[in-house]
Amino acid sequence: MRAMYYQIINQMKKGLGQIDHCLTKATTYAQTRGFDVNVLMTSRLAPDQFALVRQVQMACDTAKMASARLTGKDAPKHEDSEKTIDELKARIASVVAWLDQLTPEDFVGAGERVVTQPRWEGKVMSGADYFVEHALPNFYFHMTTTYAILRNNGVDVGKRNFLGALSQRSPA
Amino acid sequence: MRAMYYQIINQMKKGLGQIDHCLTKATTYAQTRGFDVNVLMTSRLAPDQFALVRQVQMACDTAKMASARLTGKDAPKHEDSEKTIDELKARIASVVAWLDQLTPEDFVGAGERVVTQPRWEGKVMSGADYFVEHALPNFYFHMTTTYAILRNNGVDVGKRNFLGALSQRSPA
Repeated sequence: MRAMYYQIINQMKKGLGQIDHCLTKATTYAQTRGFDVNVLMTSRLAPDQFALVRQVQMACDTAKMASARLTGKDAPKHEDSEKTIDELKARIASVVAWLDQLTPEDFVGAGERVVTQPRWEGKVMSGADYFVEHALPNFYFHMTTTYAILRNNGVDVGKRNFLGALSQRSPA
Repeated sequence: MRAMYYQIINQMKKGLGQIDHCLTKATTYAQTRGFDVNVLMTSRLAPDQFALVRQVQMACDTAKMASARLTGKDAPKHEDSEKTIDELKARIASVVAWLDQLTPEDFVGAGERVVTQPRWEGKVMSGADYFVEHALPNFYFHMTTTYAILRNNGVDVGKRNFLGALSQRSPA
């Protein structure tokens, strides 16, 4: 079981790398079209939905905090002060570096941990329920919304940029 | 391990229910505003991205085919012929009914299965890799994009409508 927590956290790490890759494509696109890529920071799909900057911050935080809550380790703090795409890329790199040092053994007992966060007003969830019902959908929500905002702005990202390389092999 | 496959497939089933819930909100919104809700079927976020109808079909297919490939069971066929939001809701109900009859025991050995699909040109993946690298991100990609298209069109959906109810409890 702990192997699967580890495997999915690793997949989130890969997902953060794909977001970084899409932001690189956005930067190239902006250069080609002759606009400042940082105007995309405040782009959004609806006036009452979070803009790109917050979507990326929340994807980072979801992967980081899920790992911290499931392993009992202290996660690095981030100030949510990014003003540029390059600063967002640096934040992703910081979270990826932290996720890089986790091992499968860190997730022993993860499903049985008791998880809470301030906005739950004292309620708790088991690690297993928190991971599957909350962390997993939230991570992909913010990752996909980031992608969708870029796509909506004309950046030439496609599903392959979202999924990244797959562990495919020739049949045995 | 098999329990976690089952738990995540169950979460996808819940996710399909949340899509249905968001489509219901879209129908109410259309009535309030006085437009035909079915115009949303062809709404999209970028001219070269799939429209709402295809996003919902693919969310359904990803949950259905992941379950079929990981359990060895034959999934029901769907013709991709939906013309209305109500027909999309019927498709969701059909997939949810199929997922409802799966048990944790059906997923024994799921991670060691050999998975392929026509577009992989002969390549294969292990069940474990396929599930984490392909099925999981794809499912949430199409679920989130469906939500984003509705949000972009003014439907009053929020994160709670996306996540649904959580298994929270008071501390022991």
